[in-house]
Amino acid sequence: MNTAPKTLPARYYADSALFGREIEKFFFAGWICVGRADAVPNAGDYFLREIAGESIIIVRSDSGSVEAFYNVCRHRGTRLCSSAEGHFAGRIQCPYHGWTYGLDGRLLGAPHMDSAVFQHSDYPLHKLRADIWDGHVFINASPQPEPLAVQLADLPARFTPWRMDELRFHKRITYDIRANWKLIVANYNECLHCPLLHPTLNRLTDYMGADNEAQPTYIGGSMGFRGSAETMSMDGKRRRDYLPGLSENERNKVCYYVVYPNLLLSLHPDYMMIHTLWPRAVDRTEIVCEWYFHPAELAKPDFAADDAIEFWDLTNRQDWHIVELSQLGIQSRAYTPGPYSSREELLAAFDQVVIQRNATAGEKSPHR
Amino acid sequence: MNTAPKTLPARYYADSALFGREIEKFFFAGWICVGRADAVPNAGDYFLREIAGESIIIVRSDSGSVEAFYNVCRHRGTRLCSSAEGHFAGRIQCPYHGWTYGLDGRLLGAPHMDSAVFQHSDYPLHKLRADIWDGHVFINASPQPEPLAVQLADLPARFTPWRMDELRFHKRITYDIRANWKLIVANYNECLHCPLLHPTLNRLTDYMGADNEAQPTYIGGSMGFRGSAETMSMDGKRRRDYLPGLSENERNKVCYYVVYPNLLLSLHPDYMMIHTLWPRAVDRTEIVCEWYFHPAELAKPDFAADDAIEFWDLTNRQDWHIVELSQLGIQSRAYTPGPYSSREELLAAFDQVVIQRNATAGEKSPHR
Amino acid sequence: MNTAPKTLPARYYADSALFGREIEKFFFAGWICVGRADAVPNAGDYFLREIAGESIIIVRSDSGSVEAFYNVCRHRGTRLCSSAEGHFAGRIQCPYHGWTYGLDGRLLGAPHMDSAVFQHSDYPLHKLRADIWDGHVFINASPQPEPLAVQLADLPARFTPWRMDELRFHKRITYDIRANWKLIVANYNECLHCPLLHPTLNRLTDYMGADNEAQPTYIGGSMGFRGSAETMSMDGKRRRDYLPGLSENERNKVCYYVVYPNLLLSLHPDYMMIHTLWPRAVDRTEIVCEWYFHPAELAKPDFAADDAIEFWDLTNRQDWHIVELSQLGIQSRAYTPGPYSSREELLAAFDQVVIQRNATAGEKSPHR
Repeated sequence: MNTAPKTLPARYYADSALFGREIEKFFFAGWICVGRADAVPNAGDYFLREIAGESIIIVRSDSGSVEAFYNVCRHRGTRLCSSAEGHFAGRIQCPYHGWTYGLDGRLLGAPHMDSAVFQHSDYPLHKLRADIWDGHVFINASPQPEPLAVQLADLPARFTPWRMDELRFHKRITYDIRANWKLIVANYNECLHCPLLHPTLNRLTDYMGADNEAQPTYIGGSMGFRGSAETMSMDGKRRRDYLPGLSENERNKVCYYVVYPNLLLSLHPDYMMIHTLWPRAVDRTEIVCEWYFHPAELAKPDFAADDAIEFWDLTNRQDWHIVELSQLGIQSRAYTPGPYSSREELLAAFDQVVIQRNATAGEKSPHR
Repeated sequence: MNTAPKTLPARYYADSALFGREIEKFFFAGWICVGRADAVPNAGDYFLREIAGESIIIVRSDSGSVEAFYNVCRHRGTRLCSSAEGHFAGRIQCPYHGWTYGLDGRLLGAPHMDSAVFQHSDYPLHKLRADIWDGHVFINASPQPEPLAVQLADLPARFTPWRMDELRFHKRITYDIRANWKLIVANYNECLHCPLLHPTLNRLTDYMGADNEAQPTYIGGSMGFRGSAETMSMDGKRRRDYLPGLSENERNKVCYYVVYPNLLLSLHPDYMMIHTLWPRAVDRTEIVCEWYFHPAELAKPDFAADDAIEFWDLTNRQDWHIVELSQLGIQSRAYTPGPYSSREELLAAFDQVVIQRNATAGEKSPHR
Repeated sequence: MNTAPKTLPARYYADSALFGREIEKFFFAGWICVGRADAVPNAGDYFLREIAGESIIIVRSDSGSVEAFYNVCRHRGTRLCSSAEGHFAGRIQCPYHGWTYGLDGRLLGAPHMDSAVFQHSDYPLHKLRADIWDGHVFINASPQPEPLAVQLADLPARFTPWRMDELRFHKRITYDIRANWKLIVANYNECLHCPLLHPTLNRLTDYMGADNEAQPTYIGGSMGFRGSAETMSMDGKRRRDYLPGLSENERNKVCYYVVYPNLLLSLHPDYMMIHTLWPRAVDRTEIVCEWYFHPAELAKPDFAADDAIEFWDLTNRQDWHIVELSQLGIQSRAYTPGPYSSREELLAAFDQVVIQRNATAGEKSPHR
């Protein structure tokens, strides 16, 4: 039985060159989640997202679509805007020499260019493909992207009852972690560590009771509540109505899904939490964690969400600490791949996706 | 007309290896400006200058010449002095084992070396060539430097009326900028950005009225004042007498010249401002900005220069911000060379110098 | 006489790749000193030591031996503990999934591993060899280490009178220095710099009076006191009894020995000082300096050691400043190997060891 699955070799977590190639394959050759459409409700609203050193403008266009552009002027390359979020008054103007673009990226004005030879149509903003699933904004840097629906597979149908499109932003916490992004995915994909690392969480759900599945483009499962627990909060109590549309079964569990590569989607009976992962270096990842609630709840005068936020912030910090310790240990010359238990089956499946995707970048198989 | 000049490929601003070779060609194979001779009026006065990690001692010798030495003891390599400026009492002594050098670099003392075999004359300080133009100190690290006069060409004759040699230091501000040094040169070489970026400056001079020329070793031009403006200050008013010796024409303009690679010389009717550029990394440059005035003005009890300093500090900061945004955008994978307008002709000329100088280091032509 | 010894070429102090190979040869292929056995008096007591990015656990086992393990869990590579020192209650448990090891490194528990195929004996902690000389703990990462006694040669016999094993820890100061580790060894190995750099020290001992010897695995010598000085302290006065067992001769000198690569052992008539060197980068070294005294002295109500600590902290800082200046100068393009005087004979001998050890890593001889 020496064919039992083992963890990946250290280079997948510690080699900067491999990291660079891997990011190309995972973040620039497919769909990634950049945030939520309700962050840009009106034409001209925008936010920036940084992906491996690239600044991307996500903006609501005049036609109501969400568009994505590289934050680079076509004149002399200047970054067009530097505020993390804001509003463009109808057009995007470069602060250096005033080249001006429409919200659809077309070049509208270029002062002092020779009108006899200069064609405005030659210099639109560099565009990325953008699409939306139930309020989640995805972008794709590939020149010939496959439809988002292919990557999402059966997820839209499966999560229809949660009506994610209706939910609205309430709170964001950003974390800066000294660990490879894949260790964060792996940590999210198993609860074998819950009894020791998360005593509070472990009182609410049964770490043995996960219902897991691994697909080519996503991975995850659900966990039912223990005893009287009704949601994930410090005491397991639910302080908000159930999301409308959930069945009895859906009210009694939490769904934890990773949509590769960077969306961790946690659907609770009464709220949605999402993590998006932003790799900054082979050993560093920025994590944006956000909580979303139903507008009917948010409108209530006594709306409160501290129970959910405090609970997950505590759990997050426990997780980030341990993945940082994993990063440090894996970088050791003494590290060798170790054995997975059957409770870590999703990790072995994720590792296979990692190996395959890196193989397309020329990485040799670990031959384990 | 696809032969219209375009900006340089990203590697000229973002590739560390190219940067290293370029610095050799621009900063270690020709004359660079290190400061002013009036900073070291007396024998033994010195200041240090750091060039790409090299510390250079600029010192006034006993004979009255200005000399330049690598800040390295010939015994065990210790840096001889670490204060940014100061005074040597007749000799330069290494603080480690006491090797002692004259202000001309000769080794005078070396304790405990075997007198039978040790020749003091074998171990002078490593010297660089130094020369002075109208008070500007230049050094040259090349073993066989051409005369400074060759690099300066007709500039000494042209700027004789400003009597720069007589001017004296008043104020220094140092800036640390996250941008390639060439973007700072380029920014200095055009005023097409002035209407949008510098509204205060743009009230004083006409950005369309520049009188430009590009030579192999320098580049620049002059701009005439608008309306009642008499100098560059917050309100355009002149609070000091004209520099003696200026003609009517010279009183009505500002001269902006870049003496390659690192001296930005701004001659006003009533003062001189100089920037010297100190590249620290491909994307980082230290800029020393200094203001010089006529001694007769400096001696007046009511002498004030806040108007000129505040004006240029404001303008500097606007420029540094925008070149940092350019650096960030140019580093993007989406950046491609963009078209210059006819108002940016000096930049295209500077780019040609950059291409040619890098070609001598083996860099392929951009073939644009 | 151009065969007179000279300092090493710059690459030995400034080339990161050479540094990486050199550290393998000096720190991972032989014995290094990691601290003192009295730091872990009881079973379960431990401290961590970081060596070139590797975290090592030094722990007292149940049998009373001192053991050394890589700080890496065999399951998923997590760093097992992160406190610099502490106590394990009988076993070492990974904080992630609870794998548990004995103080001898054996795997005792691995939750949820399939008992049909999983053998605990396959996954002990990765161990390093550990041994003790008179209280000094040494470890060796080599798979086939030679006995510590071979490396120590005649030192144990020679230093028996100081009864180092009996001495106890009193004070630790840690320094973070911007210099290559070998410059610190070199600085420790000569007192030619003492008159200029250490006027206080130079009053107590005669820098011309060193009694030096260079052996393949260690280097050093002793220096006799000047005038009425009795130990190294701010005023040369001795405030503690002589260490028991010292002869008249041994009471009148200080012994300064470097046990390669990282132990600087300074034996005084009334106390022991040790420095251990921890290279962090080619130009950065962490230095742990500790003072040890006889228990009979430590037990006295009026015990004081400020005289010795203040003296050496002052001397240390003078030395660290000058080696940082050396590092900076040696990195200059102008640096060339300089001549050693006869007062620097130990440095030339150390350089030969450095050259030979690096040659085994493929480094070409400097051919001086």
